[in-house]
Amino acid sequence: MGDVRGNPSHLALLDSWMHSYRPEELFDERGAVVAEISSLAPKGARRMSANPSANGGELLHDLRLPDFRDYAVNVPSPGTTFGEATTVFGGFLRDVIKLNPRTFRLFGPDETASNRLSAVFEATDRTWDAETIAGDDHLAPDGRVMEVLSEHLCQGWLEGYLLTGRHGLFNCYEAFIHIVDSMFNQHAKWLKQAADVSWRRPIASLNYLLSSHVWRQDHNGATHQDPGFIDLVMNKKAAIVRVYLPPDANTLLSVGDHCLRSRNYVNVVVAGKQPALNWLSMDEAIRHCTRGIGIWDWASNDNDGEPDVVLGCAGDVPTLETLAATDLLRQLFPELKVRVINVVDLMRLQDETEHPHGLSDREFDALFTTDKPVVFAYHGYPWLIHRLTYRRTNHDNIHVRGYKEEGTTTTPFDMVMLNDLDRFHLVIDVIDRVPGLAQRAGHIRQQMQDRRLEARAWTREHGEDAPEISGWTWPATPGRA
Amino acid sequence: MGDVRGNPSHLALLDSWMHSYRPEELFDERGAVVAEISSLAPKGARRMSANPSANGGELLHDLRLPDFRDYAVNVPSPGTTFGEATTVFGGFLRDVIKLNPRTFRLFGPDETASNRLSAVFEATDRTWDAETIAGDDHLAPDGRVMEVLSEHLCQGWLEGYLLTGRHGLFNCYEAFIHIVDSMFNQHAKWLKQAADVSWRRPIASLNYLLSSHVWRQDHNGATHQDPGFIDLVMNKKAAIVRVYLPPDANTLLSVGDHCLRSRNYVNVVVAGKQPALNWLSMDEAIRHCTRGIGIWDWASNDNDGEPDVVLGCAGDVPTLETLAATDLLRQLFPELKVRVINVVDLMRLQDETEHPHGLSDREFDALFTTDKPVVFAYHGYPWLIHRLTYRRTNHDNIHVRGYKEEGTTTTPFDMVMLNDLDRFHLVIDVIDRVPGLAQRAGHIRQQMQDRRLEARAWTREHGEDAPEISGWTWPATPGRA
Repeated sequence: MGDVRGNPSHLALLDSWMHSYRPEELFDERGAVVAEISSLAPKGARRMSANPSANGGELLHDLRLPDFRDYAVNVPSPGTTFGEATTVFGGFLRDVIKLNPRTFRLFGPDETASNRLSAVFEATDRTWDAETIAGDDHLAPDGRVMEVLSEHLCQGWLEGYLLTGRHGLFNCYEAFIHIVDSMFNQHAKWLKQAADVSWRRPIASLNYLLSSHVWRQDHNGATHQDPGFIDLVMNKKAAIVRVYLPPDANTLLSVGDHCLRSRNYVNVVVAGKQPALNWLSMDEAIRHCTRGIGIWDWASNDNDGEPDVVLGCAGDVPTLETLAATDLLRQLFPELKVRVINVVDLMRLQDETEHPHGLSDREFDALFTTDKPVVFAYHGYPWLIHRLTYRRTNHDNIHVRGYKEEGTTTTPFDMVMLNDLDRFHLVIDVIDRVPGLAQRAGHIRQQMQDRRLEARAWTREHGEDAPEISGWTWPATPGRA
Repeated sequence: MGDVRGNPSHLALLDSWMHSYRPEELFDERGAVVAEISSLAPKGARRMSANPSANGGELLHDLRLPDFRDYAVNVPSPGTTFGEATTVFGGFLRDVIKLNPRTFRLFGPDETASNRLSAVFEATDRTWDAETIAGDDHLAPDGRVMEVLSEHLCQGWLEGYLLTGRHGLFNCYEAFIHIVDSMFNQHAKWLKQAADVSWRRPIASLNYLLSSHVWRQDHNGATHQDPGFIDLVMNKKAAIVRVYLPPDANTLLSVGDHCLRSRNYVNVVVAGKQPALNWLSMDEAIRHCTRGIGIWDWASNDNDGEPDVVLGCAGDVPTLETLAATDLLRQLFPELKVRVINVVDLMRLQDETEHPHGLSDREFDALFTTDKPVVFAYHGYPWLIHRLTYRRTNHDNIHVRGYKEEGTTTTPFDMVMLNDLDRFHLVIDVIDRVPGLAQRAGHIRQQMQDRRLEARAWTREHGEDAPEISGWTWPATPGRA
């Protein structure tokens, strides 16, 4: 610009170029486009953006959803029965497909069965319109499951499906969703901009179900361990992104139903596929997921006042280790007042001014106290919890354990030990942080270290976790070993 | 496993399957593989991992590097002359290619010229072995510039080139490096694991030069604005990752030379390509980059004692706005003691126990004080600075401005205003945070708001930034308007 402004011969070139379009034929004397040209523009729904297929919200209808409560697992008492969260959720998805045969699709990179959603194949097939051979499994031209071993294609297909007024869910191995980071970024930016365009109608949310997650890659190892997609998602506008870490099957049902009803969000749900303890009955799960965060009364013994320590957890495996640590603490330090808090909706940790789901400072302080030590076991990279809570009154006392990029092909308990997220290390963290405890708990602290060593030695000898670890359940009377 | 253990008929099936491999023919009575089989394995360098091409460090030679000081721009005084950082660096890269015609390549998604590294075409061409037509530009079969509009291919080529014992650099638009997030993750994991393998020799670092960055997408807008690759990189092991934000041309030269000499790292360098103020002479740049962080004495007026406020900055555009804010503060509040700190090596902010480059608490406290307000202007998403510093004594007083996902196709100054990173807002941040200042600076605070409105109005009327903003330079005598 400076050049044209300062150089008359360049200005003359520009002038001549612009005049080569013969503006006198295109505009009238007031500068308006002449009727001959403006009449060429399409009218009404023929306009590119007003075409309903380009403004999918115009075509969008609510999904017909079965009652997710009908798929609940029976939980007679917390932490005593095992269930597979995604297997249970698969039954719900099967009936979502049945009830919405033309407006819902499930997308995934060849992992629908691996992520234990196979129940959907009772209702539909994989989309396939080429030749089939003997042994081919659930392929049909009208299948509602879109499977191809390309996360890029899955993401692109789903975006197109949503933008044209339909609904869907992308199930993926947690580590490999990073393949579509850049595509997610652009979709999130599109949602932000679209919200400012008055004639754009809301579209269905982009739902990710990330399973086969970092903590249970018993056979695949380090390459399959990366919980960082959540960090990427959190950089986008608070109005757009939601992250859920349901700790068991019933909470996954409640969260999944909520996500499928929502509009204009990107919902990220991380849930395990392996047998894991059921914590909450359906009614409890609904209350817990609706709050998004809550004290688990049945696991806490501070009910008559202030806790000495708060154990926070988010994610299925961290929840297991936190509850097992709580059981140990109740045995080892019966007088210690322990409060257990589980987080399903990660955005609750943020300030209410930063995210629509954020807790007020009063609510946060009432949960996490203003001055007691907090040991927080988190599913992903630990820094995220600090980033979400750094403004909170009690932040200086929040100590976070999570995945710190230590992993290999090993047992589930060895994985948590490698990252200091295991029950024994959580007990050590409590000993180190509750004022006065370390001085009198030297022997117990050493026992915890010894139990880590024993647990590791067992894996090396037996190729699996010791039965008292893999078979641990929440005791009927906590603290009575 | 449980099934085979508990079910004798399944165990019998497993037994019969295993015996079908006829182990008695493969192992001797002590369980060792019989000689007939073991002799089939290749020996010495024929073993897959011992093959030098699969252990590239065996083949690696240092680059022959020109003296980067020879490419320095002359900086008679700070902030008074303009330079294009990547253009200057391009001259250095040209001669790296000349001196290493068989062991160095430059990779990029069709952006070498756009990122202003065109000087390399004085020494080499783009690799191309197909037909050429009139108008084709610098194509040749032996070109050392690998250009293809696929970030995936660029990353894959470079990884292969490094793993086989050569050197390279990937230049990319900052926003679109997210396309290779997942490939970066795997390379970083590979570097971590390889460091534990005794016979693996170090390989050259994977170097990213990210230009055309978030703050200068004057023509492209929101889709091209994403500084989040740094966040992704920071999740990987501290031993592997390095992030540099040189604020001008001479600091980019110093950082670039350092990166090309390093081994086994992933180096991320973010640098602008637009004309920008030169801050440091070459000697100053070397000192500053070697420290990685430092007080800019010439910009500070707290030299005789404690500051009232610390202005931190990292990245070229945040540095510009911070220095312009400093100039304003010196005019508006001559008695206010301001300390300016620039960060080149982002890892310096972390604790020394978290990262090898981390500052000790004593060093950090000496720079950022233990109790004064810190207003920190950062290139990327602001939360990262909190994540890096949450353990520091003075963290509660650190207030960060950065990119908060607000952007469109607009002028450079409108972009920083949209994200509250502009000089006027930084002055407001100082007024709001220095104890006692807000009470007496009500008029000035309002002036700053008015100047933001005027600056925006100017962009709407003229389609560019006002000359007093785009033409601002550091005054010979700061504080004398």
